[in-house]
Amino acid sequence: MAITGENFIAGQRRSSGTTFRARSADSGEEFGEAFAAATSQDVIDACKAAAEAQDDFASRPLSERAAFLRLAADKIDALGDTLTQRAMKETGLPEARLNGERGRTVGQLRLFADEVENGGWQKLRIDHANADRTPPKPDLRLRMIPLGPVAVFGASNFPLAFSVAGGDTASAFAAGCCVVVKGHPAHPGTSELVAQALTEAVAESGLPAGTFSLLNGTENSLGEALVKDPRIAAVGFTGSRGGGLALMKHAAEREVPIPVFAEMSSINPVTLMPAKLNDAAEDLAKAYVGSLSMGAGQFCTNPGIVLAIKGEALDRFLAAAKEELKTVGGQTMLTTGIHKAYSEGASRLAKRTGAELLGMGEEAPGTCGQAQVYTVSADAFLADKDFEEEVFGPASIVIRCDDLAQVKQVLSGLEGQLTTTLHMTEADHAEAASLMPVLEKLAGRIIANSWPTGVDVTHAMVHGGPFPATSDGRSTSVGTLAIDRFLRPVSYQDMPAKLLPSALREGTPGCLVRIDGEYRA
Amino acid sequence: MAITGENFIAGQRRSSGTTFRARSADSGEEFGEAFAAATSQDVIDACKAAAEAQDDFASRPLSERAAFLRLAADKIDALGDTLTQRAMKETGLPEARLNGERGRTVGQLRLFADEVENGGWQKLRIDHANADRTPPKPDLRLRMIPLGPVAVFGASNFPLAFSVAGGDTASAFAAGCCVVVKGHPAHPGTSELVAQALTEAVAESGLPAGTFSLLNGTENSLGEALVKDPRIAAVGFTGSRGGGLALMKHAAEREVPIPVFAEMSSINPVTLMPAKLNDAAEDLAKAYVGSLSMGAGQFCTNPGIVLAIKGEALDRFLAAAKEELKTVGGQTMLTTGIHKAYSEGASRLAKRTGAELLGMGEEAPGTCGQAQVYTVSADAFLADKDFEEEVFGPASIVIRCDDLAQVKQVLSGLEGQLTTTLHMTEADHAEAASLMPVLEKLAGRIIANSWPTGVDVTHAMVHGGPFPATSDGRSTSVGTLAIDRFLRPVSYQDMPAKLLPSALREGTPGCLVRIDGEYRA
Repeated sequence: MAITGENFIAGQRRSSGTTFRARSADSGEEFGEAFAAATSQDVIDACKAAAEAQDDFASRPLSERAAFLRLAADKIDALGDTLTQRAMKETGLPEARLNGERGRTVGQLRLFADEVENGGWQKLRIDHANADRTPPKPDLRLRMIPLGPVAVFGASNFPLAFSVAGGDTASAFAAGCCVVVKGHPAHPGTSELVAQALTEAVAESGLPAGTFSLLNGTENSLGEALVKDPRIAAVGFTGSRGGGLALMKHAAEREVPIPVFAEMSSINPVTLMPAKLNDAAEDLAKAYVGSLSMGAGQFCTNPGIVLAIKGEALDRFLAAAKEELKTVGGQTMLTTGIHKAYSEGASRLAKRTGAELLGMGEEAPGTCGQAQVYTVSADAFLADKDFEEEVFGPASIVIRCDDLAQVKQVLSGLEGQLTTTLHMTEADHAEAASLMPVLEKLAGRIIANSWPTGVDVTHAMVHGGPFPATSDGRSTSVGTLAIDRFLRPVSYQDMPAKLLPSALREGTPGCLVRIDGEYRA
Repeated sequence: MAITGENFIAGQRRSSGTTFRARSADSGEEFGEAFAAATSQDVIDACKAAAEAQDDFASRPLSERAAFLRLAADKIDALGDTLTQRAMKETGLPEARLNGERGRTVGQLRLFADEVENGGWQKLRIDHANADRTPPKPDLRLRMIPLGPVAVFGASNFPLAFSVAGGDTASAFAAGCCVVVKGHPAHPGTSELVAQALTEAVAESGLPAGTFSLLNGTENSLGEALVKDPRIAAVGFTGSRGGGLALMKHAAEREVPIPVFAEMSSINPVTLMPAKLNDAAEDLAKAYVGSLSMGAGQFCTNPGIVLAIKGEALDRFLAAAKEELKTVGGQTMLTTGIHKAYSEGASRLAKRTGAELLGMGEEAPGTCGQAQVYTVSADAFLADKDFEEEVFGPASIVIRCDDLAQVKQVLSGLEGQLTTTLHMTEADHAEAASLMPVLEKLAGRIIANSWPTGVDVTHAMVHGGPFPATSDGRSTSVGTLAIDRFLRPVSYQDMPAKLLPSALREGTPGCLVRIDGEYRA
């Protein structure tokens, strides 16, 4: 499949604006085709086409919507090595990781296909009329309907699983929303290959062409225009805090404000409980360094801070971590910009009052990120709020606490997080129980005895959390509950059966329904 | 029960600020006790107490939470005639309406008590581990938890059902959130009586005193301080668009933005389909005038515009409406301010290009609202967006359309609404079906063959709708689904049973649960 560098506007390739080129993650040097930056007319046309396609797409039987998602998955799978090789060059991520990420991406599309057919997300409710009540009770029936066209922003760190056909796109399609993707300029060729697969899936499924569009570009003004287009009804974003806050502002300033689901930043606090630390200091240290340096630390759930109580066990942990760090080779970061931001962030961290360098990975040439771990006392951490700044990459801080009360104090003062973790044995359970209310308020996911990197795509996953981990802690961007973000309820009162959506007519809808208050599975 | 004019700060009566007095709705004259305006320290203390009470209140067994709601209902019921008489004087609403509204208020509290015990709102999900998968699948369990303390703004037009212990308060309590109410200054005595009942219910239920507070005041700065308090996690509001937009702005500007659920304005378009209009022009006219003038038109779901196709049947409808209007007596409006705003809004409407007065109700003395209906051609309506301005009170516009295409054009261009209505016979169904996609995008509730005033409190009700009907169309403020506004998901990964919330341990939770993707009722 040839890469042409064009945008996809409702099934049509189009290039009319200025151009930019992909850069090799290794060298930062431009290579290959020129990519056309989307013009403001492209934005308008893509959004118009999405709005025009919306009713048709939303009204297709759920089986058709599911079949479309499965076909999209098959087509992305079929891209095979072409996709992997292109993504490797653009992102610097290794082959095995990208093949795994392709599996995750198509698995996600297929999971949402199953979820569409499950139908529970429609939240069907039927309250029958009662003429004998005073006043008479009307017949009321409720279902969830799609919000309308969704703008999805591709993320740099998951060029497949959170980009053009990633979690936001899959859940928006599953909800019945047309999608306009703003591709991430760090992997435009990867984006185009996936967009071609989606465009084919749309056409072969007989869906209206406006169901999907891809807009390329390097300027923030493109994203702003997309969010401000009056036809866009919601926004999905994964990226920096600055980027997320800007989109929230644009969305709030619209004549009709719209919800923004931005996943922005998290330092994913990990607490090593005393008994566990004592039992397994060395194993924990090894796993910690593995988790923080995996994928050059470029995960939203990277363990940015570790809390433990001072003492001999913590000393053993630190010594082991220091040794382990020495074995960590540098790994190419996603872009030269991310590498630069990482180096600068790590320098700021190193200079903060109380920060002490514990150890570093192997010296990292070029655009590789060098792993590094710092220690700091809880008092010093508490004295400087900037210690909470996310340093995106393989850097982490171990916070030395006086006692469990101080662990709790640090955790209570942190900003909202995607995850928080407890390492513990049974001997730690009583103390851990006292932390649970703090942890529930802190994060969207509480993990026991593993490391936060690794986000399962399933029904009970929450990849979300209180601000600023996300713009809206009432949602998740991974797992089937993500579909809820793009839906709103509509109630039908005394509506003749012929005019009701079929799922709300009498008879079994074949999925979860709540009838006169009682759930029926 | 004596009215003292004090605020309730976590169970304590307190008055330290400047004072204001209740005004008679009839005369606008001050009467009775002096009410203490809450100071900024009062706001801080109420929010602090709420934050301190939050974990305790949220962790009580659901049976205790439900019992508290039922006790609150009993205590409000027991206020009986004292409450009705006070509310009559403050709001001008008639006795029967206020007794009915008390019934609705306590019924709502009891419905949410049942809903708390039903437990489906917890959205329990369990995905079991699978060690054989590559990579191994963790055990994940999800539930919804309360957002934290909620600020509730009492509404002027429902001094009981959407005020101190109204729908927002009941649903926030049901979700496990402590509540700080900002009482509406148009009915401070009514608010105090209900607050006293809630305060007693909190104490007698053994709940922490900070579970509930009431703050009085007449200045916007009080509401602003409350919304900006860092301990407040969400806002419930019913009122004017200006008020709602201001709260949205305050909430978005916070260091940690929070969700605002503001129900703001709606003109509730009603469409008279041709066959129905032909069959029942006179009956429709009579019911229309009854609906628009009921309660002096002071309902969020008042029928502000009616659409119909020009012709003999519409002429009959208009003639009958004109006659029926003459029988409508003036009714005291809620406050002199609302009366003034109504008079001014109606004057603006009368002067708009193309507006023609159809008829008026009886001359209305003092602070009574005089019912009035205007007609306008669809062309003139489409030419002036200001025709969409809500005139809060018994005024309405009939839009004369050329044909069904023009009906659709007008409906498609309207702002978001709480409700929209179709009057039709079977002969109209085919044409009505073509309108349904427009109506679903337009409103939160679609009503067949009745009038929009009257909002049933039940499971399948949606009292919400796209902006600006509400700040967030993904919610409802009436009915059991309202509880969802104040919840967020948390996922527990590989958590030892001892540390899991009891509902997520193995065994039957006794309510709706989704296990490995399958719903079990």
